[in-house]
Amino acid sequence: MLPFAITNRDPESAARAGELTTPHGVVRTPAFMPVGTAGTVKGVAAWELDRLAPEIILANTYHLLLRPGIERLERLGGLHRLMGWPGPILTDSGGYQVHSLATRRRVDDDGVTFQSHLDGSSHRIDPESAVDAQVRFGVDIAMVLDECLPFDAEPPVVERAAGRTVAWALRGLRRAGERRQGGAWGGGLFAIQQGGADPAARGSCSEALAEHPFDGFAVGGLAVGEPQQQLHDSVAAFAPLLPADRPRYLMGVGYPEDLLHAVACGIDLFDCVLPTRSARTGKLFTSRGELNIKNARHADDDRPPDPECACPTCARYSRGALRHLYVAREATSVVLLTVHNLNFFLSLMRGAREAIIAGRYSRFRTRVELARKAEADEDVSADAER
Amino acid sequence: MLPFAITNRDPESAARAGELTTPHGVVRTPAFMPVGTAGTVKGVAAWELDRLAPEIILANTYHLLLRPGIERLERLGGLHRLMGWPGPILTDSGGYQVHSLATRRRVDDDGVTFQSHLDGSSHRIDPESAVDAQVRFGVDIAMVLDECLPFDAEPPVVERAAGRTVAWALRGLRRAGERRQGGAWGGGLFAIQQGGADPAARGSCSEALAEHPFDGFAVGGLAVGEPQQQLHDSVAAFAPLLPADRPRYLMGVGYPEDLLHAVACGIDLFDCVLPTRSARTGKLFTSRGELNIKNARHADDDRPPDPECACPTCARYSRGALRHLYVAREATSVVLLTVHNLNFFLSLMRGAREAIIAGRYSRFRTRVELARKAEADEDVSADAER
Repeated sequence: MLPFAITNRDPESAARAGELTTPHGVVRTPAFMPVGTAGTVKGVAAWELDRLAPEIILANTYHLLLRPGIERLERLGGLHRLMGWPGPILTDSGGYQVHSLATRRRVDDDGVTFQSHLDGSSHRIDPESAVDAQVRFGVDIAMVLDECLPFDAEPPVVERAAGRTVAWALRGLRRAGERRQGGAWGGGLFAIQQGGADPAARGSCSEALAEHPFDGFAVGGLAVGEPQQQLHDSVAAFAPLLPADRPRYLMGVGYPEDLLHAVACGIDLFDCVLPTRSARTGKLFTSRGELNIKNARHADDDRPPDPECACPTCARYSRGALRHLYVAREATSVVLLTVHNLNFFLSLMRGAREAIIAGRYSRFRTRVELARKAEADEDVSADAER
Repeated sequence: MLPFAITNRDPESAARAGELTTPHGVVRTPAFMPVGTAGTVKGVAAWELDRLAPEIILANTYHLLLRPGIERLERLGGLHRLMGWPGPILTDSGGYQVHSLATRRRVDDDGVTFQSHLDGSSHRIDPESAVDAQVRFGVDIAMVLDECLPFDAEPPVVERAAGRTVAWALRGLRRAGERRQGGAWGGGLFAIQQGGADPAARGSCSEALAEHPFDGFAVGGLAVGEPQQQLHDSVAAFAPLLPADRPRYLMGVGYPEDLLHAVACGIDLFDCVLPTRSARTGKLFTSRGELNIKNARHADDDRPPDPECACPTCARYSRGALRHLYVAREATSVVLLTVHNLNFFLSLMRGAREAIIAGRYSRFRTRVELARKAEADEDVSADAER
């Protein structure tokens, strides 16, 4: 199993700081993983990523299987070489696409058949092929194939999906063991807890998974449309169900406040498209709340987006300049806003980790949350649209 | 006038190395100016530009007047602050849009009226307002308003345009003098030679301009559709007509071979959208000729785009990876290809300058041109489409 050491614990919450050792480096947790779905963090060159210095980044098996395809990816030297990124990489298995591409897939007890969103071609992913693909990509952390459902799925559907997810996880674990024995791979495999909104279903799913030697455990099936309070309650209830001595990963979450809450619940890893996708729609995350840079009120504002931010965008560009570039649809705008947002999320997690180590996580969290609320303005209220 | 020292001369051609001192720094020539039309080099963050280290960059008065507009640009701290770029900036006056937006403008003896390509609104630029705008932008080098024609314009049209261009240049010079006296501006003003394909018209235009204290002189009205041989013959014939002791700027040119030829004719400054625009259509300039990265034959190629290139794209990405990102329409692709192409053009001019200083420019030029022809392949022949 991948070595994982919990080095510090917050005295007032379940927050912990840890170090997860992977083939491409140590991941210091808690950590946020920038999303590089199709082989790049959108708009971010590999050397820019060096400077942002994420502990680990994420890519997506489903998207990479369609394009460039597994054989081609191997011929090009694997996923690290494709992305130009020498650090740790985790790949999602395609399970999320069971949810996000619900109209383009068919699930049975043995796996998932997708109709490509690119050309309509048919692609089969089963628990073994999902592991095989990730092994051949050369990832540091592979995820088992799971069945991710919408938040309002009916109990029988949820139960069936949780059952499949456990069965698939065990099939994936067996395959991963075979590939490791062959010496083809030194990465880790994470299992995924499903079970919808039902704590009992979450509990039995977790129990069934916990007795097997997975390298880590994820909470799946959240951030799929539920209100924020329900997300927070779910994380508080479901995170402790996962083994305490292994890394815990909350998939697809979330807003800064969601991350801070989840860290306090004992979550170690996060991924979310929010910083990157928001950048492409002109939304900036800052220490004083969110800014919609396209708002006319920023047009003549020569201040940096976030006066407390040390990112190169804030060092070099005014709000007015960023609005101009956004309105003019300049590709540079995507780069500048993405770099800022990623820096915000990565700095937030670095700050959380430092605070845990210093034994003052609760104070850190309160301070960040108050500052983000204090200057509530049009932009922040516009954020209610989320 | 802006200080300009010619420090070295090539013994075998008219090539020269020089230093032009501007308010934001010294421009070592020959130099290529990356194009940042609307306030950014497309896809390139200011800190990325730092690393590429152009001597000077270019922006466009017409585009900036429309958006963000001159008052807003002033409120945002001027053009250097808008672009996040502390080095020298030259702006084109809008004269090129007389050519490129021919269906959206009306020229009279007093100036040009444009119908905005953004919202159809009417904008008037005359010789004085063109200078005023550039002074208010805070540029290091302003260009006079000129009338740029297509290559096949009829002689009477060419003659009238050349006459206007001279009259407008002198009006611009007067206005620039007033603004300098008021202490509002420390930049330089360049005049533009027009005259179509006719050496006599070029000569009389140059003569009329040369006796006035412009900071530099440009060859305008080339690279507007003529064949490459005619471009080269024109540069050879028209460049020597400009004063030898002032910087000479060949506007809108061109391919690497065009630059090397023009340097040998005594040109000091260049600008062209080729490296940036080509990047957006998947074309890479390399020491072995051009590559169309979208070609299927690159799909499985794990070599860097240019084995002799020291740019970060070549250091981190394979041809196959770049093709994948281009085909997947990832914004990162624009960044990676633009950085490579700009580095190629900037390195080419740095190499030319070093060769002139070392007294071996002709050998340098021959070596570069032979290497670019030697590996002629599908991609290079596809380049005939240019």
